[in-house]
Amino acid sequence: MRWARFERNGEATFGIIEGEEIEAVDGTPFGDHTRTGEKVPLDGTKLLVPFEPKTFYAAGLNYVDHIMEQAEMHGREPNIPEQPDIGYRANNALIAHDEDIVIPKDATDKVQYEGELVAIVGKQAKHLTEENALSCILGYTIGNDVSERTWQKNDRTFWRAKNADTFKPMGPWIETDIDLDSLQTTVRVNGEQTIQFATNNMLFSLQRYIAAMTQYLTLHPGDMIWSGTEGSSPDMKDGDVVEIEINQIGLLRNRFVREK
Amino acid sequence: MRWARFERNGEATFGIIEGEEIEAVDGTPFGDHTRTGEKVPLDGTKLLVPFEPKTFYAAGLNYVDHIMEQAEMHGREPNIPEQPDIGYRANNALIAHDEDIVIPKDATDKVQYEGELVAIVGKQAKHLTEENALSCILGYTIGNDVSERTWQKNDRTFWRAKNADTFKPMGPWIETDIDLDSLQTTVRVNGEQTIQFATNNMLFSLQRYIAAMTQYLTLHPGDMIWSGTEGSSPDMKDGDVVEIEINQIGLLRNRFVREK
Repeated sequence: MRWARFERNGEATFGIIEGEEIEAVDGTPFGDHTRTGEKVPLDGTKLLVPFEPKTFYAAGLNYVDHIMEQAEMHGREPNIPEQPDIGYRANNALIAHDEDIVIPKDATDKVQYEGELVAIVGKQAKHLTEENALSCILGYTIGNDVSERTWQKNDRTFWRAKNADTFKPMGPWIETDIDLDSLQTTVRVNGEQTIQFATNNMLFSLQRYIAAMTQYLTLHPGDMIWSGTEGSSPDMKDGDVVEIEINQIGLLRNRFVREK
Repeated sequence: MRWARFERNGEATFGIIEGEEIEAVDGTPFGDHTRTGEKVPLDGTKLLVPFEPKTFYAAGLNYVDHIMEQAEMHGREPNIPEQPDIGYRANNALIAHDEDIVIPKDATDKVQYEGELVAIVGKQAKHLTEENALSCILGYTIGNDVSERTWQKNDRTFWRAKNADTFKPMGPWIETDIDLDSLQTTVRVNGEQTIQFATNNMLFSLQRYIAAMTQYLTLHPGDMIWSGTEGSSPDMKDGDVVEIEINQIGLLRNRFVREK
């Protein structure tokens, strides 16, 4: 099932995508909901960020080639994590499919994309095991963990490097039914493929992260986990359009524009 | 004005404290609200976490003695930040005044308190200056940034060291009218004072943080900023009761209990 979010009568509304239409729903995918019978065409409807997240978790270094290439870029030894230490990003930075990523005036040229699988928590959970970890997941979407690499090197936290307004495109919708092992993430810049990787080829799987996290913390409906990215990105210039596609989910497209 | 949050007819409700009573309010301190005339006694009413935060910002190293003492504890050179890099904590860890901090079974003995001033954003804000930074602040409360120091040393992020469930007591209420420069933070363990410091004696003031943050990010109503702590803490044992008092605001009291 695919859940989208769009504006209806001036309010953000969830809807279920079927074929070329979205059927508006009263309620949310996280609780009671009923179909309204009211439909809008998918094509031409402006999609919103697919839900308002509660806690925004992010696995930082979770693919081996990415870790090696980041280390080389920053001129340091690669530091392959020994345990799944989850990090955080911030909601201020979220934008929807087809909205513009604004590169701040004083950012350097080293602004890059990171295509990521996003897992969305649907049920409250604590003390899960790797075996039942995915039982708390409602569905999946796509994220672009946009990063300013100079700030990333110098900021003590990643507040600015990764959480400047518009730096977290997410969407286009939530897909509830996927087979993790057959996902492929493909990134294109201005229509040309720059990378393709097996989405589930993670250093620590989502199951491993969730089992580790819920040993100490409660996951709540509306929390989400961004799962990291593979490889490296060219530097994005004013006007560059990035598409991140994950088969079975969809395609997230955003343009980079430099603030005037 | 003091805003508290409590349960009324089975729902979390905001109220305004006057004298020994709380008057229930329809609405929230972040938007339209009307007094209901319905009052409950302050004494004996279970207070909730004073609001549900959106983004949970935290200044990590923001008092000089604390930085020096942390460096000594971790056996490394003190690293005094050169710029106000805001960090993040997570809502799962929040508990209210008088609720118990549960030390996980496998935590070491190095579990400590950190008494902090918390500033709560009431208005959407971007591009503030140090001069008008506080114009977005609705009020203040008190936080205890409980930390497991062994995990803090070894976790790549602070997800477990600082965000295990119950590690973020906050309350007892929101005070809207304070004079920052005359605040004193006092911490007591089992009734005995362990530290007292001038709350506003920060390395980077709230104004400086807010001006820096809003150069790149939008603050939203319901976001909050924990402002760091001074000095060091003894290790907390099962049964220890910690009170953090900030004059003009109130007193946040929580007991540490070790998970059986």
